[in-house]
Amino acid sequence: MLLTGTMRINEQGHLEIGGCDTVALAQEFGTPLYVMDEELIRRNCRLYRDTLSRLYPHSQVAYAGKAFLTTAMCRLLAEEGLALDVVSGGEIFTALQADFSAAKMIYHGNNKTPAEIKEALAAGVGRFVVDSISELELLAELAAAGGRQADIYFRIKPGIEAHTHHYIQTGQLDSKFGLGLADGQALAAVKMALQLESISLKGLHCHIGSQIFDLKPFQLAAQVMMDFIAQIKAETGYLIQELDLGGGVGIRYLHTDTPGTVSDFLELITTTVKTKAAAHNLPLPKLLVEPGRSIVGEAGTTLYTVGAIKDIPGIRRYAAVDGGMMDNLRTALYGAKYEALVANRALAPAEETVSIAGKACESGDMLIWDIQLPKLARGDLLAVLSTGAYHYSMSSNYNRYPRPPVVFVYRGQADLVVARESYADLVRNDLIPARMQQAAHKLAE
Amino acid sequence: MLLTGTMRINEQGHLEIGGCDTVALAQEFGTPLYVMDEELIRRNCRLYRDTLSRLYPHSQVAYAGKAFLTTAMCRLLAEEGLALDVVSGGEIFTALQADFSAAKMIYHGNNKTPAEIKEALAAGVGRFVVDSISELELLAELAAAGGRQADIYFRIKPGIEAHTHHYIQTGQLDSKFGLGLADGQALAAVKMALQLESISLKGLHCHIGSQIFDLKPFQLAAQVMMDFIAQIKAETGYLIQELDLGGGVGIRYLHTDTPGTVSDFLELITTTVKTKAAAHNLPLPKLLVEPGRSIVGEAGTTLYTVGAIKDIPGIRRYAAVDGGMMDNLRTALYGAKYEALVANRALAPAEETVSIAGKACESGDMLIWDIQLPKLARGDLLAVLSTGAYHYSMSSNYNRYPRPPVVFVYRGQADLVVARESYADLVRNDLIPARMQQAAHKLAE
Repeated sequence: MLLTGTMRINEQGHLEIGGCDTVALAQEFGTPLYVMDEELIRRNCRLYRDTLSRLYPHSQVAYAGKAFLTTAMCRLLAEEGLALDVVSGGEIFTALQADFSAAKMIYHGNNKTPAEIKEALAAGVGRFVVDSISELELLAELAAAGGRQADIYFRIKPGIEAHTHHYIQTGQLDSKFGLGLADGQALAAVKMALQLESISLKGLHCHIGSQIFDLKPFQLAAQVMMDFIAQIKAETGYLIQELDLGGGVGIRYLHTDTPGTVSDFLELITTTVKTKAAAHNLPLPKLLVEPGRSIVGEAGTTLYTVGAIKDIPGIRRYAAVDGGMMDNLRTALYGAKYEALVANRALAPAEETVSIAGKACESGDMLIWDIQLPKLARGDLLAVLSTGAYHYSMSSNYNRYPRPPVVFVYRGQADLVVARESYADLVRNDLIPARMQQAAHKLAE
Repeated sequence: MLLTGTMRINEQGHLEIGGCDTVALAQEFGTPLYVMDEELIRRNCRLYRDTLSRLYPHSQVAYAGKAFLTTAMCRLLAEEGLALDVVSGGEIFTALQADFSAAKMIYHGNNKTPAEIKEALAAGVGRFVVDSISELELLAELAAAGGRQADIYFRIKPGIEAHTHHYIQTGQLDSKFGLGLADGQALAAVKMALQLESISLKGLHCHIGSQIFDLKPFQLAAQVMMDFIAQIKAETGYLIQELDLGGGVGIRYLHTDTPGTVSDFLELITTTVKTKAAAHNLPLPKLLVEPGRSIVGEAGTTLYTVGAIKDIPGIRRYAAVDGGMMDNLRTALYGAKYEALVANRALAPAEETVSIAGKACESGDMLIWDIQLPKLARGDLLAVLSTGAYHYSMSSNYNRYPRPPVVFVYRGQADLVVARESYADLVRNDLIPARMQQAAHKLAE
């Protein structure tokens, strides 16, 4: 069984996370409920930060906000000394609301709008990761118009094909992200940037994908990027001083998953960068990594209440829970697989094969196919594991379900960091045109 | 080109919908923007309603709210005399906010929670579509406890395999939805319901899937359902008086799509029901159909502003827009295909093959692969067609983008029916635990 972080089974046979009994959490906050193990999040932040600074002192860990971002998460990151990857005006706004320093934000994305760029310039965002020549031109123009200089990285496609789901494989040449090396676009962009007064080229960035278990592609990417820094030096005389190698290691969704460790990952890339720097006779660049999933993924657990149970003799047993693709899109979107346990009787032995259905009106809304569990009954509390990354952040109001709350559990204390949406929230922005108000009066007559 | 409803190209070469220039709409409301052709929605409502009542007077058209539901949409449905399918407490709440009659709501879903059932009973929802024996027991108990009687349909799996994407194929036996005929569960449920005082069995429901082009499966399903009504009569003496045959015909996402027509669909099922009723010597049941996508799908257009453009020589040209999988999940989720046109110069000839990328930080966020369009430039207004169903309703805040507004256009008038989300909306429910407030003070020292 995949018990992560501070999880334990307590004396009542209940799953406990962060010193909080999940049965009590469900009673207090209702279900579905996203529970985040704050201690594990902090532990993961420190593991990246301390390991990297030991191996390579001139470095920075930036958390990839798209995995999970709220104001409380930003505050936690500040406390743990991490920088923050942002990808939108909304993420920047969220971080600013939590007093997170704009200077420690790294702004990614393949299509920043003019409005977003102006907001980011005004806030003083630390680094713009420029994705295309088109974006370079826009940023240069807007920075100049505002009398500012933008500190940039270029997003480079190192041409590495990582072994993961094709949706999250981003280093190859035919991608919406980044500038190609093979086709000369990256070098052209660098030369162009060096001519632009409102642009200060600070570094290079690459990201070869996420949930990658094999560490070898990270090494290849680091080598390619260092070779490109050497090439830029040779061709232009300009020394790139920062290298951002993107996302971190994969996580365990299943207990049989064996991602590379954070230590092995950081050891490999720091050694590679040092070796390459020596070979090219370059000073060591400042090194950045951007873990998201591996900071919060295993720290998240979704609690559901079991409802309708249906036996189709000889075919399948379905147990439906009170959430689904609205709060966990990854099964429908990526065919993702999860483990789960019955949180209110976590020591009960597995007795049956059951499939966990969501409650959305859509056949594809299945959370887990064919899992071994104790015999489920209406009212059981089901804990689906490793749901901390890309669950809350991808959640929707499909079928007009209010989104679940998020609770941080920490040393016996449970704090809401996102309150449950209400029915009123669902219609908050709805408007009825005046002509339909009149029609309604007529209908009533 | 797929010009639907009231669409036309005006004198400026701009796409016009509902008598409104889309370039002006984008200026007034910003982009991304969901534009709904109210006249086409009303026309579709009337086409279903008038055709069905002509062919089969004792009938009702119920709109499937999960396709697109707001308070204004509920008001429109009331004006057009349609009933409403709901699938959640949130949809019921939305409809009640628009003064939509609860008696005209049909409440579907595979896992209604006890709280939702109580709310629906209190509101006086017209029909509960009971999905399982487990749900029948729960509903009977809650109705009895409240001193009420619940009028129900049973959702039946007719065992039809419709040719569509497997996620939206719902009539087969191995499905989370409904009660099987082949395994005797449906008949067992009927017999059980007839013994329950708080339950009044009014009818049967089936739904074989959506976006089905071939009409034959609808005929097969209608035959199977009528045979089952005859079997119930024979075995229990009870006469089922209402038959709800579920979702409607498919729509055109591409101009090459050829779904069956509403007339052919209704002609086929009404003829089938009449023939079967005569063969079984049964009175004609009240007949219901539940179109959703075919009411609103083609009536929706999403307007985007083109941003970064990227050429990868010899490989692909990417044009990124200011929306993506946050407002249109169907490409990533189902591999859906769309047509688009350049709304600000709709008469310009196609000049290039381009792929339309979303702006979410995810490689899978592509809206259209390899479409022929005029040469795009930053600032162009791109209209993606047939986005009225399952777009707004499935939208998310992924990457913390505020969700786009929805505008109804009608005879030259444009009315907001959903206002654009603000950055403030994104953090409305965010909370920072007290212990992190203190820590922030320490950090600042």
